[in-house]
Amino acid sequence: MPPPDIVRAAYASLRVTDIARARWFWVDLLGFNVSDEDATTVYLRGSDELIHHNLVLRAGEAPALEYLSYRVRAPEDLARGAAWFERRGCRTRWFPRGTTEGIGESVRVEDPLGFTVELFHEASRMERLMQRYDLRRGAEPARIDHFNLVVPDVRRAFDHYRSLGFGCSETIEDDSTLYAAWMFRKQTVHDVAFTGGAGPRLHHLGFFTPESHNVQRICDVLGALHEEGHRERGPGRHGVSNAFYVYLRDPDGHRVEIYTSDYYTGDPGLETLRWGVDDPRRRDFYGNDVIPSWYTEATVVLDLDGAVRPVGDIRQISEARVGADGFAAAASPLESAGSAK
Amino acid sequence: MPPPDIVRAAYASLRVTDIARARWFWVDLLGFNVSDEDATTVYLRGSDELIHHNLVLRAGEAPALEYLSYRVRAPEDLARGAAWFERRGCRTRWFPRGTTEGIGESVRVEDPLGFTVELFHEASRMERLMQRYDLRRGAEPARIDHFNLVVPDVRRAFDHYRSLGFGCSETIEDDSTLYAAWMFRKQTVHDVAFTGGAGPRLHHLGFFTPESHNVQRICDVLGALHEEGHRERGPGRHGVSNAFYVYLRDPDGHRVEIYTSDYYTGDPGLETLRWGVDDPRRRDFYGNDVIPSWYTEATVVLDLDGAVRPVGDIRQISEARVGADGFAAAASPLESAGSAK
Amino acid sequence: MPPPDIVRAAYASLRVTDIARARWFWVDLLGFNVSDEDATTVYLRGSDELIHHNLVLRAGEAPALEYLSYRVRAPEDLARGAAWFERRGCRTRWFPRGTTEGIGESVRVEDPLGFTVELFHEASRMERLMQRYDLRRGAEPARIDHFNLVVPDVRRAFDHYRSLGFGCSETIEDDSTLYAAWMFRKQTVHDVAFTGGAGPRLHHLGFFTPESHNVQRICDVLGALHEEGHRERGPGRHGVSNAFYVYLRDPDGHRVEIYTSDYYTGDPGLETLRWGVDDPRRRDFYGNDVIPSWYTEATVVLDLDGAVRPVGDIRQISEARVGADGFAAAASPLESAGSAK
Amino acid sequence: MPPPDIVRAAYASLRVTDIARARWFWVDLLGFNVSDEDATTVYLRGSDELIHHNLVLRAGEAPALEYLSYRVRAPEDLARGAAWFERRGCRTRWFPRGTTEGIGESVRVEDPLGFTVELFHEASRMERLMQRYDLRRGAEPARIDHFNLVVPDVRRAFDHYRSLGFGCSETIEDDSTLYAAWMFRKQTVHDVAFTGGAGPRLHHLGFFTPESHNVQRICDVLGALHEEGHRERGPGRHGVSNAFYVYLRDPDGHRVEIYTSDYYTGDPGLETLRWGVDDPRRRDFYGNDVIPSWYTEATVVLDLDGAVRPVGDIRQISEARVGADGFAAAASPLESAGSAK
Repeated sequence: MPPPDIVRAAYASLRVTDIARARWFWVDLLGFNVSDEDATTVYLRGSDELIHHNLVLRAGEAPALEYLSYRVRAPEDLARGAAWFERRGCRTRWFPRGTTEGIGESVRVEDPLGFTVELFHEASRMERLMQRYDLRRGAEPARIDHFNLVVPDVRRAFDHYRSLGFGCSETIEDDSTLYAAWMFRKQTVHDVAFTGGAGPRLHHLGFFTPESHNVQRICDVLGALHEEGHRERGPGRHGVSNAFYVYLRDPDGHRVEIYTSDYYTGDPGLETLRWGVDDPRRRDFYGNDVIPSWYTEATVVLDLDGAVRPVGDIRQISEARVGADGFAAAASPLESAGSAK
Repeated sequence: MPPPDIVRAAYASLRVTDIARARWFWVDLLGFNVSDEDATTVYLRGSDELIHHNLVLRAGEAPALEYLSYRVRAPEDLARGAAWFERRGCRTRWFPRGTTEGIGESVRVEDPLGFTVELFHEASRMERLMQRYDLRRGAEPARIDHFNLVVPDVRRAFDHYRSLGFGCSETIEDDSTLYAAWMFRKQTVHDVAFTGGAGPRLHHLGFFTPESHNVQRICDVLGALHEEGHRERGPGRHGVSNAFYVYLRDPDGHRVEIYTSDYYTGDPGLETLRWGVDDPRRRDFYGNDVIPSWYTEATVVLDLDGAVRPVGDIRQISEARVGADGFAAAASPLESAGSAK
Repeated sequence: MPPPDIVRAAYASLRVTDIARARWFWVDLLGFNVSDEDATTVYLRGSDELIHHNLVLRAGEAPALEYLSYRVRAPEDLARGAAWFERRGCRTRWFPRGTTEGIGESVRVEDPLGFTVELFHEASRMERLMQRYDLRRGAEPARIDHFNLVVPDVRRAFDHYRSLGFGCSETIEDDSTLYAAWMFRKQTVHDVAFTGGAGPRLHHLGFFTPESHNVQRICDVLGALHEEGHRERGPGRHGVSNAFYVYLRDPDGHRVEIYTSDYYTGDPGLETLRWGVDDPRRRDFYGNDVIPSWYTEATVVLDLDGAVRPVGDIRQISEARVGADGFAAAASPLESAGSAK
Repeated sequence: MPPPDIVRAAYASLRVTDIARARWFWVDLLGFNVSDEDATTVYLRGSDELIHHNLVLRAGEAPALEYLSYRVRAPEDLARGAAWFERRGCRTRWFPRGTTEGIGESVRVEDPLGFTVELFHEASRMERLMQRYDLRRGAEPARIDHFNLVVPDVRRAFDHYRSLGFGCSETIEDDSTLYAAWMFRKQTVHDVAFTGGAGPRLHHLGFFTPESHNVQRICDVLGALHEEGHRERGPGRHGVSNAFYVYLRDPDGHRVEIYTSDYYTGDPGLETLRWGVDDPRRRDFYGNDVIPSWYTEATVVLDLDGAVRPVGDIRQISEARVGADGFAAAASPLESAGSAK
């Protein structure tokens, strides 16, 4: 039974507790374009995006990830996807066109890793904004690049996505443990990546911006507004992916990466690049240590019924403890590395 | 009969009249990495490239394009490709592994447009140089991006590549004429593009560099060495593709584009972006006119036997005459627009 | 009799025919900050500027330069300046504090070159906006850099400013003629420069922006709005000054340069860098030709009574004719090089 | 008695323990240009520098700062400077032309802060390398920007340099304490700055590079060579000065800042910008904490006889303890903040 033909990571739907404050952060500050909105929901897209949105912000009681959404190549990939997940014992549910603004019929599943994942093919075409330089501001987000997921068992997540037809561009590992993996369908370093930790939780959403000075600019704007507390880590260059990055936290604590550079992965037989967990350059090529909160804090996820999924402890050695960031000694702030925030 | 599954533009093989001088230009100045070389041949790759090369420079009597080379997805795409072209009445010829350093078995064809085109699957893996920032210099070429071909009939070239399974990201056209088209297999704006003119000739090879300051840098280096005569057009931003660019000419007059930015084209149902021939931004988003030599000069191409292909006059209205660049009045320098150089 | 101690080029006052349209160009598009405004006048400053303004736009019947304004070191430099110019037979006139918003007492003179020049010391302090990255847009002008003046006799202009205590960083010359000169008081390449042509006229106002991607950005914004007609020349790097630049024209045809990079000139005994008029890199380090309009079009200047100064023919060989830009052959568009627009 | 007319910070002379290794770091890696060298000494300058050097590396037993050197406006400023310092009870010593390669007659003093300071006027002119883009590499250092000094009493250092005629662009302070100050002669943010700590010691030498992507590049190169241990802090933007920066350590532990952006300070009456010690943006505008080693480690200085000056404990509250970097809790790594390394 073939898996659905997933094209790419397309959008995520986040619960936010204050829609006005979230809109300020994502639209006014980061520079996303509003495709549509009402009193409780805002639909956002990057300037290069041609479909309706890359992000849905929905007002709710508590911060959470509602679901991740992948676009599939053809309408028939929806039924193929539903069958593929059902064969693995996953709950699935169909949604008619229009359930989400701008998105056609879709199927959502509770995947084996505990995330709610949507597949869709049809989407509304939007005005091209790529060359509307007059509208650009903040981080100048161009397109969604990837989802990064916190999972208790990285190997299991890797195997699941491998069976879904994802390639693997890079890993962090040692002889016994896979600490992290970057996997792709589109021809970039990743559509999805895994960080070992208490999960299932959403680690971050990654958005692509054209050049590294755009990464710098959003940091400059945050400082200008004395909102630098929204910056969590960076700017810097990743060893993995070679991308220049900064991590921010939105008003609900959802983490977002502004990301640029990356490389082409479309050739057949691409060899996985394997980084040692003791290489200080793997997560910051300049040698800056990762910070503890980056390893411990993340967003809980909802099931198909909108209930928060329980967060299970990490089931492998934590990269935060054995990695080159020097946290082994400073154990106290990481005691909770294996617990939900 | 299905076409071969082409993955991407992989490399080109150029005849150069002075191999030492060509090596100075492509290696010392532009910053390509030498994968291999002997007295008469140099194999070059960009810093991101994982296969053996993106360019072959081969010493010869006169400047010419030997062939363009596409990588195909699977070994069986060679036979499928040979059959597909033979069905169209094209001559084909097989070459065993090692004919070209680093390339496995291949088949070359004289395509219906008059270009010699190679298909190959197998290639040697090379050391990753992407993060060897200590080796970067000049234009910091990362990977080959595209071939740009001068053809007398753009619609015919478009139809041929459409039948080969290429998508079309952008065009320049008016009600009656297709002046130029950008077509892709990998998920970028193009692997191949067509410029209307006396052909078949190679207009230019396009190489990707990470950021726009890299485009600026190669111009700075040329000025520093008083070699600014190698710069032909730019720097500027293209309307088509949104890329930031500069065009250079090598010591034999072969044109090379240093190119950055671009966008993702991998979604199903991508809508072609159509530019009017009278939009001054189509070829330079800042409104700088294209220069006459860019429309008239190009590299002749060789057939399977190494003979120069005759160059036929343009068979449609020339963009150089009707386009927004203001050349209609200044007819004299463009009298030869329809003739070989 | 010592000259006044001029600190730097501080601001210019321009007549514009449509104040709303001018405000759109300078504020909304280029990104200047409004310090003050009323129905007929707008006062603008760059983000780094600490005094009231770098530019005054004043509604009037026809486009013109009202005057150039230099800041002097001490209050007593006003009387010293008045005396110095009067000794040279120049008309002078005093203006009390507040004549121009934000500027203290000043003296204006009709200088020997035919320009109306103001000296002032006292100025209102404004809020620092340098780190208000949230307010930046367009070309992100930071400060006024220089005035560029069209004069019929460059040597005479050079001698005048030399006697005023200006240093000379660079020139364009040959054995018999001084074609252009760059002269400074602050420690940059220039506060004032001279272009040979029919004058007195204002060639352009130069504003500094932090980095070259800011130069690129304003070009991108113009293209986005299909206002690329406001771009006249560039982007490129100057040989002279090593600055990265673009020239724009405002709705009244006033020319503005967005300029970055430059170098330090504060050491004693700085040696003048002399460029040959036949070096294609002198005005564009990449070898792009200057365009005819850049040599022929400019803004007329007003005398102390607000009357337009007559424009006299160039009194030396024109750089436009002998320079490396290849205009000698294409004489027709330059027939008027020696005449007022 | 007037102070000598100091033009700017010109160069520093450093003792290094392995001249070959130091040359690798400063020349091969950072990209300085060698003006002269012999078996024990290397003279280096940035690409914009027109005098002989900005840095002298001299082989010695132990790492140290030999002296700081300022250029003065006129030859007679040497005697004026000697007298001025002698009046303050400072030892002075004269050195004939040629004592240091490329430098004319000079006088050195042991200043009241415990640093050996040289004054010189005459210097050899060197070839302009500013536009030799073909030679640029690494951090592309253009010119020396400033000296940063560790002093036990910042107010005293401030008063000393104020009496020498330096202006003050910015400070870090609170109601009772001056924690740091930036002071200038040339028209930039500083030629010299003070950091409170055990001193006298040299905190770092600051070199200017054209744009922020050049700061990023040296970090990329260090990562590429797995020499990221030479990076100590950054990249980031300073609140103070608005400059984009990174701090590196050379093989002897001498700290160097690669620095870009800055602003013009040449107007009369420049108002000092005062940052609160509790503003997390003062030292990193993005809110990244300063790291402990940056506050505690520095280079000892030599007296006129070449002996190491004793290092006295800090005599004020340490910014490392009260500043916004959160080190108050983490006292242990800072116990030695008041001691020599």
